[in-house]
Amino acid sequence: MKAKSKRRGVSRQEWLAAGLEALARDGIDSVTVEGLARSLGIAKSGFYWHFENRQDLLRQILDYWAHELTEVVTRNPRVSALEPRDRLARIAEMVLEYNLDRYEVPVRQWARRDAGAARHVRKVDRMRLDFVRRAFRELGFTGDDLEMRSMLFVCYQTWEASMFRELTRKRRRQLISVRLDLLTHS
Amino acid sequence: MKAKSKRRGVSRQEWLAAGLEALARDGIDSVTVEGLARSLGIAKSGFYWHFENRQDLLRQILDYWAHELTEVVTRNPRVSALEPRDRLARIAEMVLEYNLDRYEVPVRQWARRDAGAARHVRKVDRMRLDFVRRAFRELGFTGDDLEMRSMLFVCYQTWEASMFRELTRKRRRQLISVRLDLLTHS
Repeated sequence: MKAKSKRRGVSRQEWLAAGLEALARDGIDSVTVEGLARSLGIAKSGFYWHFENRQDLLRQILDYWAHELTEVVTRNPRVSALEPRDRLARIAEMVLEYNLDRYEVPVRQWARRDAGAARHVRKVDRMRLDFVRRAFRELGFTGDDLEMRSMLFVCYQTWEASMFRELTRKRRRQLISVRLDLLTHS
Repeated sequence: MKAKSKRRGVSRQEWLAAGLEALARDGIDSVTVEGLARSLGIAKSGFYWHFENRQDLLRQILDYWAHELTEVVTRNPRVSALEPRDRLARIAEMVLEYNLDRYEVPVRQWARRDAGAARHVRKVDRMRLDFVRRAFRELGFTGDDLEMRSMLFVCYQTWEASMFRELTRKRRRQLISVRLDLLTHS
């Protein structure tokens, strides 16, 4: 794969990253083979080295989004090994540090009119909620109270950057422990 | 205004509602005078009875969104008169009852590439946060703790429907008091 990619100059990952950027900037209709080739400064033929067609690219963009911006946390053994409260703090820090929330709005706008994208988004939401719920359960919470704490945490982590744009990164970092004090308080 | 509207068959409000529906379905680029006239089954000329041009329509759509889906709560004397916890519960019930959250994703996707829309969204977010913060302050919370409770509440109310689509309305209604128990617990 690597050798192939080099021969064509642009890796599969670069196409996917460019696709997500185009999606974030102008919405899903702007994610075209021609547009991406132009933005990467490469001939369109290079695209078909990595993808069958635009539909295949779109599907792989969703996988890439799920992997690079969610599984990077939920499947990270160094995160899973932490004590539950530290694990929740680490999730919040990683979202902040790597801007893991930067594609939420455009991906969800896409999912409003594409059933395949909608299924994918639901899968990712479930993955996040399951991971967070496990931590709150280990802290001793149960039932509706467990559910509500987990949902509040996931919801806030997903939308903080879009909703509270005036917050500095320093302030967002400070608020992590305030939030955890509140949500892990019994 | 009413007489004028009747002469033209379609009221200003119907144009705005149709504009928001088109925005929600296909994003801001699909909000065109031609497209809306077609969906309303009316000649394009009727548009200019109410709006100067597309730009004017877009600005008025934002005002309409702010008014019909936020100020309907924050400027409602029957809501403001309630005790703070009841007020917070009433906000959550109204969001649920009238689907006040149904345009959040498309409006924010629009705001990502339009500075005017972004300013409007920030203004609405501040309006919501101020209204909610006042209730939590009356409950005795202060400082960062006050801020975090208010932000968690607003964030959840804005995104519950998009993030937790599998919840029934009945379940969403049940969760209101669970959420308030958690967020108003000192």
